[in-house]
Amino acid sequence: MNKKIILVDIDGVLADFEMGFIKAWGKKFPTHPKVPLEGRKAFRLAESYPNGLEKEIQSILSAPGFFENLNTIPGGKEALKKMQDLGHEVLICTSPISNYKNCVPEKYRWVAINLGFEWTKRIIMIKDKTLVFGDILIDDKPEHTGLREPVWKHVLFEAPYNQHVKTKLRITWDNWERILE
Amino acid sequence: MNKKIILVDIDGVLADFEMGFIKAWGKKFPTHPKVPLEGRKAFRLAESYPNGLEKEIQSILSAPGFFENLNTIPGGKEALKKMQDLGHEVLICTSPISNYKNCVPEKYRWVAINLGFEWTKRIIMIKDKTLVFGDILIDDKPEHTGLREPVWKHVLFEAPYNQHVKTKLRITWDNWERILE
Repeated sequence: MNKKIILVDIDGVLADFEMGFIKAWGKKFPTHPKVPLEGRKAFRLAESYPNGLEKEIQSILSAPGFFENLNTIPGGKEALKKMQDLGHEVLICTSPISNYKNCVPEKYRWVAINLGFEWTKRIIMIKDKTLVFGDILIDDKPEHTGLREPVWKHVLFEAPYNQHVKTKLRITWDNWERILE
Repeated sequence: MNKKIILVDIDGVLADFEMGFIKAWGKKFPTHPKVPLEGRKAFRLAESYPNGLEKEIQSILSAPGFFENLNTIPGGKEALKKMQDLGHEVLICTSPISNYKNCVPEKYRWVAINLGFEWTKRIIMIKDKTLVFGDILIDDKPEHTGLREPVWKHVLFEAPYNQHVKTKLRITWDNWERILE
């Protein structure tokens, strides 16, 4: 067997960031415009929303509990387990927001609560994922730019804001196993 | 100029982990044996202390405030700044303890307080540093084993517990500039 190092992103891949944001946004700013998931054409939230709401968007992401309380994306945990059972090394590779105060500890707690404590030892918290070695990165982010050319193959996790990316490596947790082919 | 990616560890390199531990240990367990810095022959604390104190050692490292309140090692901040001024990319590469609860957020806060907020964006929080790409890793830990052969050159930061390592690349913040030669 060809043992691989597989890096897996959290937000939009294991954790339902979009639904968490939409719910928190509607609750905190009930009169502000709402952008449904299918209207999210850009990866960055601020680019999908009308101009001038950057501060409000950041206030949602920085609020205590936002990252910790995200729901899981169904099938993610089982997929990670299956990858391990097949003999691969699986790591959680996630970028914190710059306002790290709640985000960083809550991402650790999210992993502990939703995947189990042992997975917290497999977290890689890093802004620039191009600096991480791996065979595969499963990530919903359309492009990764950073200090170097990544060595991993980017497998795109399906999302409305990455439809413009031309790749055959596009998965959900229903069909992820083809990345191993 | 040959622009390098330089990874710099926190504990024992930028932050005075040893002194922080000795002080906290004496305060919390005044009747337990103390091991002075020169008696620290093994990297892991538990291997330098008499058997049976692992739990007590962990209780010090896990206590709120331990990592956040570590003093700086003089010259570290200035060296990072100098590396950047010379055009290198400098990142902070640190391994959290498994009991991540206080350690992880406090390492971020330590960096914000002692190096400045911008440096928090350059933190890489990872257990297995062999997975990080860089040209140089400045670290006091004698050996790094992990999922792969590291691509970085390990520059050993001087400490009593790494004297057995045979390397010409051994520095303090007084003579670090020779790593660039």
